[in-house]
Amino acid sequence: MTRTEGLRERRRRQTHREIQEAALRLAGERGFAKVTVEMISAEAGVSTRTFFNYFPSKEAAVIAMPPMPPDEDVTAFAAAGPADPGDVLLDLIALLLRDMARHPPERGALHAMFALGQEHPAVLAAMLAGFEGFQRQLAVTVAARTGEQPHDEMPRLIASLAMAAIRTGMENFTSGEDDDPVPYVERAVTTLRTLLGR
Amino acid sequence: MTRTEGLRERRRRQTHREIQEAALRLAGERGFAKVTVEMISAEAGVSTRTFFNYFPSKEAAVIAMPPMPPDEDVTAFAAAGPADPGDVLLDLIALLLRDMARHPPERGALHAMFALGQEHPAVLAAMLAGFEGFQRQLAVTVAARTGEQPHDEMPRLIASLAMAAIRTGMENFTSGEDDDPVPYVERAVTTLRTLLGR
Repeated sequence: MTRTEGLRERRRRQTHREIQEAALRLAGERGFAKVTVEMISAEAGVSTRTFFNYFPSKEAAVIAMPPMPPDEDVTAFAAAGPADPGDVLLDLIALLLRDMARHPPERGALHAMFALGQEHPAVLAAMLAGFEGFQRQLAVTVAARTGEQPHDEMPRLIASLAMAAIRTGMENFTSGEDDDPVPYVERAVTTLRTLLGR
Repeated sequence: MTRTEGLRERRRRQTHREIQEAALRLAGERGFAKVTVEMISAEAGVSTRTFFNYFPSKEAAVIAMPPMPPDEDVTAFAAAGPADPGDVLLDLIALLLRDMARHPPERGALHAMFALGQEHPAVLAAMLAGFEGFQRQLAVTVAARTGEQPHDEMPRLIASLAMAAIRTGMENFTSGEDDDPVPYVERAVTTLRTLLGR
């Protein structure tokens, strides 16, 4: 247990992962259309009430979305204060990479999610809406650091660019061979730095 | 009729727009769930066969997605050849802005699309999948210019960043007051230039 992540947070991540694995396993076995929230809850050994504390729908349960980094890390990022926008972007990506190194996503789960998204518009909608929501949270985080509003252009663009690097890296990871996602994202960040001229 | 856009292309844009307007009008009057492809086709005065030449579904018909710029402009962009990646990005955005100035999207249609997307996951999925598809075409265009492959990192990142600027501008246009979308995108591009350090 690190200082930046308490026991409760670890349990939350664990339950989140167990429900997701149950949902993906059932979707693989029976076909996603036949799977219900009740079946997923029973398979994961939780009540449907607990299920809905974690996910709004069965579609959401098959989406492997990175949670935001721990509050302490986000607070430290914000406390660093205004800086050159390019530096804020690179700091934000570094924050996300540190969290990814601690909790690497699993290639199989990402693969299954993308495959379900291609077959089921509701899964695709949940997936892309998840990316949008994550990106909005990133804009809030940037704005907390720079003293801007989350809907101002610079925080939104910094959040978009960070997401573009993360997504490019994750897509390469999903179709790649190395089991560690971090180097894939690092390579995308190197490309982004070339674009930023730094 | 300009040299870069023939009569056939103008007719295509016109029919596209008429079907879309019919779909949005019917969705507003009767509720999207009750609208069928047959109803939209009748309202627009086209056969369902023509409908399906333009849109794969009723969800797709309410999505106001920019078409790619005319082939001649894309060819000229590609013929300019390899350049500094930041310059390729700014050239790509300039290409899209020229097309937007010629065929400005209508605020009402964008508003209606975003509202339908919030209510109907299938519309949201079609909308976000439309953005993804457009972005993929941009990566192909960039790769044709730089001699890379469309799935290489740089073309994908350049396409993502161009989309980020366009989407930020369009979101501000949709909630803004000026009837011309171009200045909204130009402001987002100015912010992006700051991030790129140029």
